[in-house]
Amino acid sequence: MAAANPTSTHDVARPQGGTAAGTRDPLPSWREGTSKQAILEFVERTTTDGSPDLVPPPERVAVFDNDGTLWCEKPMPIQLDFILRRLVAMAEQEPELRARQPWQAAYTRDYDWLGQVVDRHYHGDDRELPVLAAGVLQAFAGITVEDFEAQADRFLRGTQHPTLGRGYLACSYRPMVELLGYLEANGFGNYIASGGGRDFMRPISQEVYGVPRERVVGSSTSLAWEPGEGGGRIVRKPELDVLDDGPAKPVRIWSRVGRRPILAAGNSNGDLPMLAFAEQPSRPGLRLLVLHDDPEREFDYTSGAEQALEQARTNGWTVVSVKDDWATVF
Amino acid sequence: MAAANPTSTHDVARPQGGTAAGTRDPLPSWREGTSKQAILEFVERTTTDGSPDLVPPPERVAVFDNDGTLWCEKPMPIQLDFILRRLVAMAEQEPELRARQPWQAAYTRDYDWLGQVVDRHYHGDDRELPVLAAGVLQAFAGITVEDFEAQADRFLRGTQHPTLGRGYLACSYRPMVELLGYLEANGFGNYIASGGGRDFMRPISQEVYGVPRERVVGSSTSLAWEPGEGGGRIVRKPELDVLDDGPAKPVRIWSRVGRRPILAAGNSNGDLPMLAFAEQPSRPGLRLLVLHDDPEREFDYTSGAEQALEQARTNGWTVVSVKDDWATVF
Repeated sequence: MAAANPTSTHDVARPQGGTAAGTRDPLPSWREGTSKQAILEFVERTTTDGSPDLVPPPERVAVFDNDGTLWCEKPMPIQLDFILRRLVAMAEQEPELRARQPWQAAYTRDYDWLGQVVDRHYHGDDRELPVLAAGVLQAFAGITVEDFEAQADRFLRGTQHPTLGRGYLACSYRPMVELLGYLEANGFGNYIASGGGRDFMRPISQEVYGVPRERVVGSSTSLAWEPGEGGGRIVRKPELDVLDDGPAKPVRIWSRVGRRPILAAGNSNGDLPMLAFAEQPSRPGLRLLVLHDDPEREFDYTSGAEQALEQARTNGWTVVSVKDDWATVF
Repeated sequence: MAAANPTSTHDVARPQGGTAAGTRDPLPSWREGTSKQAILEFVERTTTDGSPDLVPPPERVAVFDNDGTLWCEKPMPIQLDFILRRLVAMAEQEPELRARQPWQAAYTRDYDWLGQVVDRHYHGDDRELPVLAAGVLQAFAGITVEDFEAQADRFLRGTQHPTLGRGYLACSYRPMVELLGYLEANGFGNYIASGGGRDFMRPISQEVYGVPRERVVGSSTSLAWEPGEGGGRIVRKPELDVLDDGPAKPVRIWSRVGRRPILAAGNSNGDLPMLAFAEQPSRPGLRLLVLHDDPEREFDYTSGAEQALEQARTNGWTVVSVKDDWATVF
């Protein structure tokens, strides 16, 4: 049964107890418009009994990128701030690291170097990525997964966003959190398929997004189990396991879920394969691409999203404008 | 709230509507005895409101090996039969394969060679495993995950066990299926953490075990997403991704679930790390080791389980005797 849908133009059954005038808006942070309408219509088509496009609940899989899709990624991804602080702490302890990247950039606050590596990655140029990655992997090598989680948790709860005047945990986009809740209420299974670190997001995914930790898919470091007291321990190795971006996203989603999604939301070129993958034969699919075009309330950028925007326009995917479609951002 | 527990010696609240004499036995295929009692007491302690050992439902994670723990693995693992038939078909089409292992063994029904490779693996000797693995990986290389699933599904539904006089889908152990249902009814999340192939089990896991496909963890082949019509396709590469056995099991469970289990069930040396891993600080844990000691109703073997049995005895884990503990096997 679809939730209330005051903007629908479809002639389908309304939920019991709802009236055209009196139904509650399930997405109050979304302005009326084509994006909101596309979401409401899609959910109604796929979840209303008797609809020719009804999808059984276990097959209602929705996947969401995290950085720039569910929460703010500017001026730098939140996890990068976490990593930089750790690199700075390492360089403070070991002066010889200050002459080596990425410790040098972290220690001297050379955000240009760092921004460049990330930007180039989004444009398909990964030449400098291994240098950054090696430092990142070193930064948390050898610690247990529980220790890493405790560090991530402490950072996320205790750190302010550099410019927005709010804590990092309050940097999720209210309209997207509403969307997650609306989908869940309609029998969808929401997954986070992020290029960011799986184990970085897990401590807060339930609280911030209502997504349980087992539904967080993301990049991962290689792990090893070491026998010992108390069931042994799982430690982080200084090796990348999977960088969950680009064509890795569909593979990682399939490996975790065992199904193709019917809804995918992203915001950058790295989300393109995942967005394309959210298609099932003779079933409707919904693809949302968040466009950051609101310098007043958030940020204004399309760098790293050029191909995604082009594909969205070519394929008729739904471009969600932060400026026009969201009544509230945070 | 724990389910009815007629054998408990604990002084805890009974579920509403139950009486000491009239409660329904949640595990009717289990004979009264220490194994059944250990299970019932563990579930009661961890799920009854007011119990000092109460575990919140999201943390009630239970993990199960599959071959030899949830279904029969003799005279050979069910998936091996599936693979052999494919190797035979390949050797029939390409005669030159008949002189190469593992096609030779498959084509000439040389089960000794194959049994030896598997047996040696359980004893920590993997010298010949790559030869078998290379053939196995070749056997299904290049096909889509959907095609592989359709082949596995067709095989599992259409093939008889060679000696038990029943179809493969009827080779699951009734007491273990009952246990899965009992745990689920008490708020546990059951996962299959198998050395067998994840994508081989997924088509039937819900139907046979009540375990949804996203909770099937297991060995996997490397996959690649290829762009194209209809959302592109995910194809199997002739490369092993993860052999989910031994110390890989705790890592794979953590990666999927993000939690340590409180219950683990296995039957072989390859399950030892997973069994050890099912331990949380100041919480009860339950470890079940299935002992195959019933040549009349199933099979009688401890090969590949010697260390596991020794550990179980040393650590006081619960050894489940097929002969003594199970009133019904299938």
